Amino acid sequence: MSDETTARLLIKCSDCPGIVASVSNFFYNHGANITCLDQHSTDPEDGVFFMRLEFQTPNIDISRSVLEKTFAEAVAKRYNMDWKISYASSKKKMAILVSKYDHALLEILWLWSRKAIDADVTMVISNHDHLKTAVENFAIPYVTIPVNKENKLDAEQEILKLLDNKVDVIVLARYMQILTGQFVSHYPNKIINIHHSFLPAFVGANPYRQAAEKGVKIIGATAHYVTSKLDMGPIIEQDVIRVSHRNTMAELKELGRDIERNVLARAVKWHLEDRIIINDNKTIVFN
Amino acid sequence: MSDETTARLLIKCSDCPGIVASVSNFFYNHGANITCLDQHSTDPEDGVFFMRLEFQTPNIDISRSVLEKTFAEAVAKRYNMDWKISYASSKKKMAILVSKYDHALLEILWLWSRKAIDADVTMVISNHDHLKTAVENFAIPYVTIPVNKENKLDAEQEILKLLDNKVDVIVLARYMQILTGQFVSHYPNKIINIHHSFLPAFVGANPYRQAAEKGVKIIGATAHYVTSKLDMGPIIEQDVIRVSHRNTMAELKELGRDIERNVLARAVKWHLEDRIIINDNKTIVFN
Amino acid sequence: MSDETTARLLIKCSDCPGIVASVSNFFYNHGANITCLDQHSTDPEDGVFFMRLEFQTPNIDISRSVLEKTFAEAVAKRYNMDWKISYASSKKKMAILVSKYDHALLEILWLWSRKAIDADVTMVISNHDHLKTAVENFAIPYVTIPVNKENKLDAEQEILKLLDNKVDVIVLARYMQILTGQFVSHYPNKIINIHHSFLPAFVGANPYRQAAEKGVKIIGATAHYVTSKLDMGPIIEQDVIRVSHRNTMAELKELGRDIERNVLARAVKWHLEDRIIINDNKTIVFN
Amino acid sequence: MSDETTARLLIKCSDCPGIVASVSNFFYNHGANITCLDQHSTDPEDGVFFMRLEFQTPNIDISRSVLEKTFAEAVAKRYNMDWKISYASSKKKMAILVSKYDHALLEILWLWSRKAIDADVTMVISNHDHLKTAVENFAIPYVTIPVNKENKLDAEQEILKLLDNKVDVIVLARYMQILTGQFVSHYPNKIINIHHSFLPAFVGANPYRQAAEKGVKIIGATAHYVTSKLDMGPIIEQDVIRVSHRNTMAELKELGRDIERNVLARAVKWHLEDRIIINDNKTIVFN
Repeated sequence: MSDETTARLLIKCSDCPGIVASVSNFFYNHGANITCLDQHSTDPEDGVFFMRLEFQTPNIDISRSVLEKTFAEAVAKRYNMDWKISYASSKKKMAILVSKYDHALLEILWLWSRKAIDADVTMVISNHDHLKTAVENFAIPYVTIPVNKENKLDAEQEILKLLDNKVDVIVLARYMQILTGQFVSHYPNKIINIHHSFLPAFVGANPYRQAAEKGVKIIGATAHYVTSKLDMGPIIEQDVIRVSHRNTMAELKELGRDIERNVLARAVKWHLEDRIIINDNKTIVFN
Repeated sequence: MSDETTARLLIKCSDCPGIVASVSNFFYNHGANITCLDQHSTDPEDGVFFMRLEFQTPNIDISRSVLEKTFAEAVAKRYNMDWKISYASSKKKMAILVSKYDHALLEILWLWSRKAIDADVTMVISNHDHLKTAVENFAIPYVTIPVNKENKLDAEQEILKLLDNKVDVIVLARYMQILTGQFVSHYPNKIINIHHSFLPAFVGANPYRQAAEKGVKIIGATAHYVTSKLDMGPIIEQDVIRVSHRNTMAELKELGRDIERNVLARAVKWHLEDRIIINDNKTIVFN
Repeated sequence: MSDETTARLLIKCSDCPGIVASVSNFFYNHGANITCLDQHSTDPEDGVFFMRLEFQTPNIDISRSVLEKTFAEAVAKRYNMDWKISYASSKKKMAILVSKYDHALLEILWLWSRKAIDADVTMVISNHDHLKTAVENFAIPYVTIPVNKENKLDAEQEILKLLDNKVDVIVLARYMQILTGQFVSHYPNKIINIHHSFLPAFVGANPYRQAAEKGVKIIGATAHYVTSKLDMGPIIEQDVIRVSHRNTMAELKELGRDIERNVLARAVKWHLEDRIIINDNKTIVFN
Repeated sequence: MSDETTARLLIKCSDCPGIVASVSNFFYNHGANITCLDQHSTDPEDGVFFMRLEFQTPNIDISRSVLEKTFAEAVAKRYNMDWKISYASSKKKMAILVSKYDHALLEILWLWSRKAIDADVTMVISNHDHLKTAVENFAIPYVTIPVNKENKLDAEQEILKLLDNKVDVIVLARYMQILTGQFVSHYPNKIINIHHSFLPAFVGANPYRQAAEKGVKIIGATAHYVTSKLDMGPIIEQDVIRVSHRNTMAELKELGRDIERNVLARAVKWHLEDRIIINDNKTIVFN
């Protein structure tokens, strides 16, 4: 099951009997070895059906393009499927946006350096130059694009130009600027943000301060796809940690930092491994 | 450290040097053996100081009333303390309000029956009669006071009359009626509610439905003191459990049920053991 | 997906390409609607393959017995499968063995009374009569069979006679007697025990004492199938809770009690829902 | 409460009435402001008493040495105390031993670089040179001392010479050599190891393999002080993570890695902040 031979199919369609049989038959008949199969239905009657198939390609009897074309005609059309096949050997391209905090960024880069996060990290873009050395130590280009009230839209244009529609995922590793809906519309369901609270609690600025003022006994972090609504996109992953009246705001931030970096790393990993399907404003995560 | 001999002092005052020394001296000099001491300061300069002292009474050289009077004059006055001494041998009186769900109620009663919750449960009051047999099996009186739109205020008056200002804590074990501010004002910081969400997320009705619609990956429960603002009183305890897209709403309720009953039981236990001090809209819990 | 119509197939065989396609085809062709499919392979090359299929029966075109016979011939034989089909409508029969502690027993019975545990509880057998009333309140027969050094084997014979080979699962809800290998051999992979430690740590007697003496910072509980080797059978489920130097042995037991009952309840539920396949001395749990 | 002014007193003695009063009086009378007080007794009658006092020094009326001498005579002698005062401004010296795995080491160094771990890291010693660049990027000396069967004792002598009795704590951040009792005897209760299992389960080599073969549903990590008995020293901290039949051995290692680094970091932090007192083969951790 090496990266050289692994492919993944994601499917979304109306549920009805026969889908699993049709799909598994198709791949078996063409020589694919199914090594993992996950499926979910919101309701067997009238619901939405989701499927993730991991298969090995060495003995497939046709080329990638023919396989996809044949699948489209022989299976996908019949069930009116929304579908996509990805190949682990074609690494996804990833850009990271960051401000001054290093923890989420360094976790991603460290996992990347040990191949636990499997992507081509094409660049890190920041509105500050604080983390330039840290990033360049990983031999990754670091571009500083300052942002202020006046140049916000220009800065976004500059970022879009740099990205050049060539990245498969943009990771906001504590990027402290709110992206415009216009920017987001270029990368629908491709921008992953880490918010430092257990959403939907504490939307917006200073969630640790909000948590301290509310006196919660548990704090959390949430990784989600970015939509035009602030902190409201589909949630990919969340985690929490217990706190108490003893913890100062500085300690909340310190404790939260560990949760943030782990939650973001898991979400990015799952995105890269094609484990996430979006259903309205929610996610199906086959992990 | 039996219940016969254990006493507890709770203190709240402005922080300044010397409080711990004064308090511990006072009790030592009167023959009390300090078996547990917890303290917290929001800020050593200008902050609020909180303390919980557990001490054993057998060798105390003066009566309870003289001890309290002497402490008031010799220590509390100097630091302008808000303070209270409780004796484990004087069990707190507890009433439970419940509707139809049995899980939170039965957990409390089961813990009570094995003396893990140490109180006199004087009565269970419900707006339905569903749980009458279950409660009476524990030899606890069960009173049904139906509530509807028309009689809501009358029903509250009837409950107040039953309670007769003689209970130290009212536990809302999934009581599905919103108490009026007028009712709450009779028992400030003495009514504990279990809300079936991780507050402040999902205030109000149907939090599991809200959670399902939002697509959160973790659900929770919150025990809090009841104030006149719905679901906004000081949080005592919270806990969470991981869920996924696979969980139906019925399963969310089933999973949440375990969290609800455990969180409520811990909060009630801490209240009964005088482990909670309220500071504005937050709690200090010495556990 | 009511209990009336749900069936479950469990499969274990050598892994090779085509199994998923063959199985899903077979059931689709006979009118079964697959509502859940889980599979696992220890290794796509040369490994062992496991599968759980949940399907709905209303539109199946042949009788249960013909379906099973046809599946055996058309599919199972080809892959040399170890397999079994269960029907949710045929409730499993369950007996519970218990000594004096009530927490694990009451949890199971409470879940059973609200249909969250779906079985026919045929009897509770105990070596003491302490819990007779509690059990009979649930309208379940309670049989006392005292055990001592002299009559141990006779007592086991008496239990076997009572069970009469008619139960599908025996739950040891803190039954403080070690069953002989001879007894266990009558119910292979059908006896579920809850051990009050995080196995393999603290095998045998007094695990909470062992934990306290070792000074662990976390205690746990383990549900496992019983084999002839004490506390060494396949682990079904485990969970843990954080403790500290402050916790007395009595508190460890109290904290552990909550973990024990939850872990045992999950294991029993999964067994009843045919979610567990045993592989050597380990379990595959499709949950 | 800056590091400049914070001091910490640790006490261990036989329990008897009056200790808290004596200690708090002493410090109050000399102008120390107590900002944190934790205490624990194994038994108020005949037990062992432990105490941690955090106090601020700016207004203390005597020098450090006079304070300590006076405390020894006025308080410690009376209760036959084992005690120690540390000053946050005198940073502890720390050496780290590591082999090839980088995760535990980098976590410590990363926390150190952001001052969340407050020590002077004097050197990193390794039996391999793999991590030389990574460590030198932090401007910390890296010394390679290869170890094999023949030179083991010589290598230990070399390490001892390098350390020169000048370090307050030695952190084994996945150092894959077993230290001799002779080496350990030079640094009693000053060597912290991270073992990659939930001790006492899976002592010794390859705990992840042992866990996989046993089929546990949860894996863990344990930070402990090193004694002459392998993996048997006083446990400081433990944590766990849920796993399943789906996880390969490689994934267990990957999941365990996160637990290992967090558990070790917490243990090291607590040691540096004088939060740990050893009682026989167990720890009291005031955190």
